[in-house]
Amino acid sequence: MRISELSRQSGVPIATIKYYLREGLLQPGRATAATQAEYDEAHLRRLRLVRALIGVRGLSVSATREVLGAVSAHQGEQHQVLGLVLGARPVGEGEEPPAVPGGADVDALVAELGWDVSPHAPARAVLAETLETLRSLGEPIDWHTLLPYAELAERTAVLDLDQIHPSDDLLAQAERALLLTVLMEPALLALRRLAQENESARRNA
Amino acid sequence: MRISELSRQSGVPIATIKYYLREGLLQPGRATAATQAEYDEAHLRRLRLVRALIGVRGLSVSATREVLGAVSAHQGEQHQVLGLVLGARPVGEGEEPPAVPGGADVDALVAELGWDVSPHAPARAVLAETLETLRSLGEPIDWHTLLPYAELAERTAVLDLDQIHPSDDLLAQAERALLLTVLMEPALLALRRLAQENESARRNA
Repeated sequence: MRISELSRQSGVPIATIKYYLREGLLQPGRATAATQAEYDEAHLRRLRLVRALIGVRGLSVSATREVLGAVSAHQGEQHQVLGLVLGARPVGEGEEPPAVPGGADVDALVAELGWDVSPHAPARAVLAETLETLRSLGEPIDWHTLLPYAELAERTAVLDLDQIHPSDDLLAQAERALLLTVLMEPALLALRRLAQENESARRNA
Repeated sequence: MRISELSRQSGVPIATIKYYLREGLLQPGRATAATQAEYDEAHLRRLRLVRALIGVRGLSVSATREVLGAVSAHQGEQHQVLGLVLGARPVGEGEEPPAVPGGADVDALVAELGWDVSPHAPARAVLAETLETLRSLGEPIDWHTLLPYAELAERTAVLDLDQIHPSDDLLAQAERALLLTVLMEPALLALRRLAQENESARRNA
């Protein structure tokens, strides 16, 4: 397909596609004339993934380039590719993650749940920070409080991964996982708010 | 207690407490001398609620004043007070909420779940916007997709409301509900991310 069709199918403006080509985020098309090139499904899948990493995950161009490089190095490895695209695993995993206040509590929670997760996962720091913040406000909370919430998160994750079709191309799976994971976040929080209102009505009936 | 003790117990600086007094967010203490006043547990509870509405929910002073006024008008009514403090119900409910794209889908979802929730709940607009955004990105999603997530939200809401102790003063319950609801949001999203990573590892083992 020509660049205009690539733009139409991806929803990315032609000028932006050309920018991504110059930045090396998208591989060049097959040159058919001095100023024309042909693009195919592989270009479209890669472009959609770039659009998701930059537009939905909010990555810079250079961070996106790093993620795409790491993804290429893990071709065919679904778990690694999903982790890189979703930001659960960093591009370079050489160093120990820095110790954070409350980090030991999160380690204990993860161990109790038996979860196989990276020590670098940014989500761990978010959990540690939440526990610390609530404690600083005088809330009697420790990691045990999070256990039943974590069990519900396990069921949510099963629903999430069931939305990914293993027959799709791996880049397409990863792009879809990123969209569904990030864009569903406000919706999941909204469902909880409505459910709280309903439960409160039920208890006060 | 004197204002210095009120400040120590609430974590709110004295200058801020005086500001809240001038703005009418906090009721005056009992004057014991020309420039001294005594405060009690009721002041502390009110101050903590103001701190949560402004600091955690991010309300302006005038919006906080409106919520507190409505809360006073619904004394002893747990469901109404929780709704006002959490922002599930607006202070004035006179008008019909504006129709939003995707709103009918949310109405259908709420009806299917049998949830007793306000038509004004901001969470409804968030759900509608999510459905529209995902559809505009080509995702084959409609409100039925949200049903199993909503059922998990119901269980989350039971955990949430179980954290509120009915024996506490109602303002203290509402402040605690606000803190736990808002501050747990990043933690719940983080638990989902970790659970996804674990589930992916499990499926790719």
